Amino acid sequence: MKSAVDRLILDEILPRTNPVPEIELLYRMMRDYPERGGKGMRPYICVTSCRAFGGSESDALLTAAGLELFQNWILIHDDIEDGSELRRGAPALHRKYDWTLALNTGDALHARMWQALLRNRERLGEARALDVMDEFARMINETTEGQQMELSWVVDKTWSLTPEDYFRMCTKKTSWYTVISPLRLGGLAAGAAPESLAPLVEAGTTLGVAFQIHDDVLNLSAGAKYGKQYADDLLEGKRTLILIRLLQVAKGEERQRVVEIFARSREERRAHLDELLGMIERYRVLAFASDQARSLLDRALATLKTVRWTGDAGAAARLEEIARYSVERDW
Amino acid sequence: MKSAVDRLILDEILPRTNPVPEIELLYRMMRDYPERGGKGMRPYICVTSCRAFGGSESDALLTAAGLELFQNWILIHDDIEDGSELRRGAPALHRKYDWTLALNTGDALHARMWQALLRNRERLGEARALDVMDEFARMINETTEGQQMELSWVVDKTWSLTPEDYFRMCTKKTSWYTVISPLRLGGLAAGAAPESLAPLVEAGTTLGVAFQIHDDVLNLSAGAKYGKQYADDLLEGKRTLILIRLLQVAKGEERQRVVEIFARSREERRAHLDELLGMIERYRVLAFASDQARSLLDRALATLKTVRWTGDAGAAARLEEIARYSVERDW
Repeated sequence: MKSAVDRLILDEILPRTNPVPEIELLYRMMRDYPERGGKGMRPYICVTSCRAFGGSESDALLTAAGLELFQNWILIHDDIEDGSELRRGAPALHRKYDWTLALNTGDALHARMWQALLRNRERLGEARALDVMDEFARMINETTEGQQMELSWVVDKTWSLTPEDYFRMCTKKTSWYTVISPLRLGGLAAGAAPESLAPLVEAGTTLGVAFQIHDDVLNLSAGAKYGKQYADDLLEGKRTLILIRLLQVAKGEERQRVVEIFARSREERRAHLDELLGMIERYRVLAFASDQARSLLDRALATLKTVRWTGDAGAAARLEEIARYSVERDW
Repeated sequence: MKSAVDRLILDEILPRTNPVPEIELLYRMMRDYPERGGKGMRPYICVTSCRAFGGSESDALLTAAGLELFQNWILIHDDIEDGSELRRGAPALHRKYDWTLALNTGDALHARMWQALLRNRERLGEARALDVMDEFARMINETTEGQQMELSWVVDKTWSLTPEDYFRMCTKKTSWYTVISPLRLGGLAAGAAPESLAPLVEAGTTLGVAFQIHDDVLNLSAGAKYGKQYADDLLEGKRTLILIRLLQVAKGEERQRVVEIFARSREERRAHLDELLGMIERYRVLAFASDQARSLLDRALATLKTVRWTGDAGAAARLEEIARYSVERDW
């Protein structure tokens, strides 16, 4: 399934050649992240949900490709905003090419995403094609709002955050495009009525947050399998649940010390990485975060069991598997 | 008409309040450029074209609002990419707020544009709503390709360009979203068949290039009425027809001198502005550019006369007026 989506994107949706060399470079840049290949989890959830609601794999392929294109263009912009160095084990696009070209490439890829979704018109008919696009618009609204929260915390040097702040940000920034919309889009592609998909919001919310917490844990524990640079989140000053928890459990001088380290520049912070990692270990913060992810997963699984799937029961079972995988994966 | 589009955008499409302060800031930033108010030329062309093809003003309002939203989000990103200081007489968004937040705001506004277009479904029906969105996708593809050409020239320090290179870039970067698509979108909103709108590509191409040349001339001649900073194009090193012509007519040491000045940083270049302006004056480059704009206008007017409008003849006449205005305006 993943290879079908990748082929659709690379062979049919994204252009490859143009007589103007500058434009051919744009095409090469647009293909860069898609060619690196991601986990493909979002398209997988979308296609599997479509089958669980009685649709076929091919009903959901263009929509799944749209999700993958969304992930790719927003990662290009996120990487610029966060000053990230690596993406999927290679230099981020704005480090491989001039950053102004990378920014423009994100916009170009964004438009190609909508163009792919417009092709649903032939496959799914006009009404379903429009329903799918409505969901995409909502999903992007949520994602950019979550991104704004996270970026604002960094810009304003906000440190007094609670786990609830994190859950709210993370629901918008991660849950919508990682789980909620992939589940709902599968249903829409299968022809389910938009109203009937409301219960998927709750399951997707908790599962998405669990996924992100696990991702943040991986950034501080995984080896070479993980595509981002080790401990990049700490260098970027990302407000992860881990950091928020550390600032809650560390007291007095020690908390002050953490805030001081994060007030410094990214490069200066690098010299204090071991000190931060030592505190995270001492306060068992990773274990706390993993426990949270696990308990969110249990809630999500319980909610998924209440959904009335109208199609393939095997597909519904695979959605539970992917839920477990999302907080147990080691990459 | 302009006020109807502005009201639609500010009162119905863009949100205003949110309990999360960071998100309310996003909304404020999204409203910033729209509230500054532009010339409104693109929505005007769209609505007027709709009437000339037999539709009503209200048939085209959401589509016209989409064009204005497009202009606003792409300007936010363009201003970041070009390092622009001013926009419509006030600091560019990334100079008023943190630039990472401005980048994200552009993406958020981009999604709201598609959401506005999806509302055409109720007004125009599913088929026309989808036709309008097809045109938007094409328009954004062209615009980002043109932007990539222009940015690449700056990044690669390309100076050996011909007026033909400029026309090709400018057709993509300016003509499509300024004239071609506004004309065609008006027709689509009125229910014209997409095939019947093909002739508008030629008229819109020449008129758009004429508009951009005039804009570049204004940047070097206009007073306080012009929203961008005086001579900002020269400081940014933009490959305008003016600069390309100067590099063609200046010979030997003098040409070398121009290339040298443009090899310097923006700040250093500022000290040599008078020298550049002196050469532009001496070689009568602005007069050359204005002549080109005028002759493109004549061609566009001739092509417009061949279009078979099926609606209001007064509206078709107003399209000729706006064509003239676009190369005669002084702001």
